[in-house]
Amino acid sequence: MLSKNQIKYINSLKIKKYRQQSGAFVVEGSKSVLELLASDYQTEFVVATQEFLQKYGSNSSHTAANWIVATTAEMDRLGTFQSNDACLAVAKTKENVFLRVQLGEYGLMLDDVRDPGNLGTILRIADWYGITKIICSPSTTDFYNPKVIAASKGSFTRVQAHYTDLPKFVEDLPDQQKLIGAFLDGESLYDFSFPRQGGYIVMGNESRGIGPEVAQHITHRVTIPRFGGAESLNVGIATAVLCDGWRRGMK
Amino acid sequence: MLSKNQIKYINSLKIKKYRQQSGAFVVEGSKSVLELLASDYQTEFVVATQEFLQKYGSNSSHTAANWIVATTAEMDRLGTFQSNDACLAVAKTKENVFLRVQLGEYGLMLDDVRDPGNLGTILRIADWYGITKIICSPSTTDFYNPKVIAASKGSFTRVQAHYTDLPKFVEDLPDQQKLIGAFLDGESLYDFSFPRQGGYIVMGNESRGIGPEVAQHITHRVTIPRFGGAESLNVGIATAVLCDGWRRGMK
Repeated sequence: MLSKNQIKYINSLKIKKYRQQSGAFVVEGSKSVLELLASDYQTEFVVATQEFLQKYGSNSSHTAANWIVATTAEMDRLGTFQSNDACLAVAKTKENVFLRVQLGEYGLMLDDVRDPGNLGTILRIADWYGITKIICSPSTTDFYNPKVIAASKGSFTRVQAHYTDLPKFVEDLPDQQKLIGAFLDGESLYDFSFPRQGGYIVMGNESRGIGPEVAQHITHRVTIPRFGGAESLNVGIATAVLCDGWRRGMK
Repeated sequence: MLSKNQIKYINSLKIKKYRQQSGAFVVEGSKSVLELLASDYQTEFVVATQEFLQKYGSNSSHTAANWIVATTAEMDRLGTFQSNDACLAVAKTKENVFLRVQLGEYGLMLDDVRDPGNLGTILRIADWYGITKIICSPSTTDFYNPKVIAASKGSFTRVQAHYTDLPKFVEDLPDQQKLIGAFLDGESLYDFSFPRQGGYIVMGNESRGIGPEVAQHITHRVTIPRFGGAESLNVGIATAVLCDGWRRGMK
């Protein structure tokens, strides 16, 4: 059974300040929790229904975590962002370690992506296309926001993020690494070849795009060709189309 | 000023049954309302702040609608899905008329897409890639759901939907029209050439994909190549990548 303090603790982790103080975050839903338990994240505890516990709790790879049994009604009260059928976990956040792509590798760079749903979707897309490193501006929404974790559908376990001052990070890049930026007035994606040296695909803010401080360092401005009346594409959609264009060109 | 009956009417249109009874739907937010007013939809009335009215209400192309002035507080109480800065409109829904693509044209076919945010995103993507006809199963979420309209960012004015029994619609298709279906076990999208005759790009339900009754009529099964650990892509993302692959191949 859940104690009052545990409920208070779990609820506190919806807020960034308390996630940072505790160094912990919440993962909701059975699929995401199972991916968490199979990952290298350190899980503090799992809250689950008796049914879920019987099904998965005895699995040897999942025994490291503490399991707390809760009723469905208790789970409903805890769940915040999705119909939480069976479980929820609290895990330790990772350190904000420095990340950089290798020669020939591509990563993502996010300049002020604010919407947690968008960031979660971008993690899932990165994971689909085999991108594991994401460099984020400090203003980009928190990786451990429960909405990000939920929207990533487990991909948060396979993608790493590094939050840093982007203009500084970009100035210190090795010369051969390229910055491919999505703009509305760049070269057509269909005519563009992603440089073999690798680098970063840079995506900007939902309304304002890539900021001027990062934009001045972009080595290749590309545009997704438009054939109809829509003014823009959502940043997650644009990320997927660019990643797909990159992978298609590499085959 | 808004009357109690108008408020009641606007609120009723959040529910599909009442939208169908009234043959009307709600459009929220200034950008979407301006696109509505510039479209061939028939607008019943616009509720806007004094400021918005002064800016746009006197524009000759917008004079057909009745304008109702409301305070920001009144607008806040009416707005349901987004920070509704300036206005909201009620417009007449269109008849569910029969639609079919021409030779050489592509449309979308949606088999049981349930999430309104996904449908709205798909409308925006269709509009970006110049697709104007979408055939939907009756179980696909309602085109006029306020969340669909909001997520479409005005693209609902340029894309038409026809709700119909898909297995029947598909059986009656002309032979030369192709059905390109997104599956997890099809031919690689990167090796696939979209047939010049045109047809439909078919997307399925968020969990179950394309249902068996439609699947048996698919002429080309294609898959978006995967390079990492994510199990799937969101249906909106997959739609964009397929549309992009089609347009890229046509250039």
